[in-house]
Amino acid sequence: MLTLARVEAAAARLAGVAVRTPLLENRVLNERTGGRILMKCEGLQHSGSFKFRGAYNRLVQLSPEERRRGVVAWSSGNHAQGVALAARMLGIPAAIVMPSDAPAIKLANTRAYGAECVLYDRYTQNREEIGHSLAAERGAVVVPSYDDHDVMAGQGTIGLEILEDAGARGLAPDVVIAPCSGGGLIAGIATAVQALRPETEIYTAEPAGFDDHARSLKAGEILSNDPAARSICDALQAPSPGALTFDVNRRLLSGGLVVTDDEVRAAIPFAFDVLKLVVEPGGAVALAALLAGRIDARGRTVAIVLSGANIDRAVHAEILAKAPAARL
Amino acid sequence: MLTLARVEAAAARLAGVAVRTPLLENRVLNERTGGRILMKCEGLQHSGSFKFRGAYNRLVQLSPEERRRGVVAWSSGNHAQGVALAARMLGIPAAIVMPSDAPAIKLANTRAYGAECVLYDRYTQNREEIGHSLAAERGAVVVPSYDDHDVMAGQGTIGLEILEDAGARGLAPDVVIAPCSGGGLIAGIATAVQALRPETEIYTAEPAGFDDHARSLKAGEILSNDPAARSICDALQAPSPGALTFDVNRRLLSGGLVVTDDEVRAAIPFAFDVLKLVVEPGGAVALAALLAGRIDARGRTVAIVLSGANIDRAVHAEILAKAPAARL
Repeated sequence: MLTLARVEAAAARLAGVAVRTPLLENRVLNERTGGRILMKCEGLQHSGSFKFRGAYNRLVQLSPEERRRGVVAWSSGNHAQGVALAARMLGIPAAIVMPSDAPAIKLANTRAYGAECVLYDRYTQNREEIGHSLAAERGAVVVPSYDDHDVMAGQGTIGLEILEDAGARGLAPDVVIAPCSGGGLIAGIATAVQALRPETEIYTAEPAGFDDHARSLKAGEILSNDPAARSICDALQAPSPGALTFDVNRRLLSGGLVVTDDEVRAAIPFAFDVLKLVVEPGGAVALAALLAGRIDARGRTVAIVLSGANIDRAVHAEILAKAPAARL
Repeated sequence: MLTLARVEAAAARLAGVAVRTPLLENRVLNERTGGRILMKCEGLQHSGSFKFRGAYNRLVQLSPEERRRGVVAWSSGNHAQGVALAARMLGIPAAIVMPSDAPAIKLANTRAYGAECVLYDRYTQNREEIGHSLAAERGAVVVPSYDDHDVMAGQGTIGLEILEDAGARGLAPDVVIAPCSGGGLIAGIATAVQALRPETEIYTAEPAGFDDHARSLKAGEILSNDPAARSICDALQAPSPGALTFDVNRRLLSGGLVVTDDEVRAAIPFAFDVLKLVVEPGGAVALAALLAGRIDARGRTVAIVLSGANIDRAVHAEILAKAPAARL
């Protein structure tokens, strides 16, 4: 079960290990939206995304024998880096199955953290099969990227920190929005936030074509994305909500917000020009939803998660070169 | 006189007005340098640089009559934005003399804050003459960018925050390094830090060719830069230390660190790839000094100021395109 106690236990394991990322506020963003926008900056987390939290919380609980045999994971790149770094810190061998078209920075960093990268074709091969057979060969533990209660609990520490840091300023979020792929980040956050402040509305943010959560939440059952869908958000391409994550999310979420790739392409230059932060496409969808007016922030306190910042320089430059200058 | 009390009074005026910018730490930067590096992120301040602090602290003390007549300032762009924004917040008309080759983002933002921009040629015209005659015409108050005790006191609040936020983590800086042009930022910081922790070593960071502080501190007298000097650091081109700032800095600083433009060109991609922060050239010189090994950080706690983040997209993209990938 995913409970507040489990998230709090994760927070105790991560204390002094994970970065206590800042909860930033920006004058221009507040003016633009009419609300108080609190940005949880997980791009500043170890490995450049929130994924380190869940990975470390899972790996640190492995037995000495499991640690010796190593771990296997599959990931478009941020869970890869999170697992690879946590494994290095704990002295655990790690093999990660990654799409061959993952951003170069994600592949390079995963290798730099000492993990073995096994590449596959995102559109023709099944990464889960590759991962499971690798794990079976080696007797290694599979570390899921979202459908695992300890992974979700690790990501949920973000919810605790949002409430604590907002509270220290005399604020409490009326709304929380987080990027969503398999649903582990939002499930962890929702578990923490709903337990401590049940009146908070919690929304996923997803790219168009990968809006499986928005549709599944509305339908009350797990729906999948069209396999032909494509998006600039390389980190948010899970085929459907996870079984364990959806069991949480169907109960705790208020709904799902959906943004176009063009809206993401506008949020990244806003982050550069105004927020002075690097954000990757998948990490920018909650910001994009806010800037695109998907939710009315006027008079409300809205916490958004900027969930990752692992973007290739050339992709970033191309997005910025094509975007009009951000207005102040 | 610039005293701790004056900096503390500035902090009281800025409380709830300026951003309490985060003091970030990065695992990779710590590993690379062997120290605990605390980064004071003033790019996240209102107007994208520390300059808002000093400008607001000066302007908020103007009389109703002075406020009505307005203010005049000259600046390469960050003091311009700081004054323009503080003036807008306080309902004060502002005219700013800016070089015609200032970064486009600095000109656009200064205008967006509602200030009148008067352009001059950085290499053939005298901005102080233009500014003084404008102020005389209008009966406006001149707001110096560094040689003013209230401006320095405002910037000095950064020193207070570094000590407080480091202290909250059980740390105290052995060394503080800040970018330096006219010397107001470092004078304010040094006044606060030396009063509270006299054993701290405090260093300026300057670009080669504009190393007037490094040389003046060594000589014990104010020395000027060669007017033919050029640097990518558009914000750090004051001709010599200020009279008031040098009076403080000659007593309180340990020395000056100097970096090449190429070292700045390496620090900006490091900030993007690893720190996930936008930094402008002048804002990156303390980071560049650290990465270039100008100071031995091993076993020490070193606070550096990332003082500004107002950089044109195209300049940023060009610097990143030419730089090798940052190693983790």
